[in-house]
Amino acid sequence: MKITDRKLEIITIAAQLFKEKGYSAVTMRDIAQAMNIKAASLYNHIKSKQEILVLIIIEIAEEFTNVMNEIVNSNDLVLTKIERVIQLHIDITLRNADALACLNNDWMHLTDDELQYFVKMRTEYEANFRKIISEGVLAGELKNCNQEVVVFSILSTLRTMYLWYNKTKDLDAQTLQNTIATVFLKGVANK
Amino acid sequence: MKITDRKLEIITIAAQLFKEKGYSAVTMRDIAQAMNIKAASLYNHIKSKQEILVLIIIEIAEEFTNVMNEIVNSNDLVLTKIERVIQLHIDITLRNADALACLNNDWMHLTDDELQYFVKMRTEYEANFRKIISEGVLAGELKNCNQEVVVFSILSTLRTMYLWYNKTKDLDAQTLQNTIATVFLKGVANK
Repeated sequence: MKITDRKLEIITIAAQLFKEKGYSAVTMRDIAQAMNIKAASLYNHIKSKQEILVLIIIEIAEEFTNVMNEIVNSNDLVLTKIERVIQLHIDITLRNADALACLNNDWMHLTDDELQYFVKMRTEYEANFRKIISEGVLAGELKNCNQEVVVFSILSTLRTMYLWYNKTKDLDAQTLQNTIATVFLKGVANK
Repeated sequence: MKITDRKLEIITIAAQLFKEKGYSAVTMRDIAQAMNIKAASLYNHIKSKQEILVLIIIEIAEEFTNVMNEIVNSNDLVLTKIERVIQLHIDITLRNADALACLNNDWMHLTDDELQYFVKMRTEYEANFRKIISEGVLAGELKNCNQEVVVFSILSTLRTMYLWYNKTKDLDAQTLQNTIATVFLKGVANK
């Protein structure tokens, strides 16, 4: 997808409003007002709230999909692959937390082809992560515990990071990366 | 709170409906219909959808609060305390996943005193878990990494378990307990 500057401004502001008020409660008029333009001008750039939702969610879902594909097809060690997945989620969370909130809360408001496309990307993303974990167990890099629980323990933390990462001031990307990698790879217990 | 059998039936069915359609979209009529009774009979037992929401959420939040208080005030080792917190979330998730979905999705629809009471319980719950983690670091039982990241990595996984625990058939409470404890205490890497 190619996004113009004006569209980028629209989706940035819309994502904030969706997060604050919920997708269903926000109107095109609210978005125009927040941008300080007339609703008619907004329609010159974008045809509906639905189109905005698609731009926000599909853009970010495609980024997750593309980077995950690179990671899963790389020759890295599994531990490195997991670190790269953590890195990917931190990158997007720090850059675009509002859009992530929108993806998590409002994806079910997508329709038809876009909904199917999104669900397909999400399913493949999980399947790819599962593949990394099972490759790690096979190679002896990872402990042999219930793989679904491992997959969703890590993914739950990464997917909800946008909700809690800014509860602490001064929590930089590097500290997030190191701590999450330590927690999941080595555990919190001191041995 | 003391809940009659009839009220329990109402909140069980309402929690399912809230999960399927979203709190705002469900009417008292829908709830009566799902119970195969007239709306008028429903009002004999409960005065509003808001009262149902309070019953569902406050009940479960109080259970989390009470057990967490027991754990934090016990003389257990910190590693045991963390295992008991994991156990608490598994217990409630397996017993009452619909109510947990309601708590997570709809708590913001609580009003006035109930909203304040809920937010207070949630804040204290996080503060108590934070206390366990910092006690563990002080005692040398836990690694000294960023405590907020540790707190929310573990809580995110436990709080979203209701979304993923039943993606795998045959995932029993004991396997969940062992795997989550292993992941967070010892890490997934094979040493």
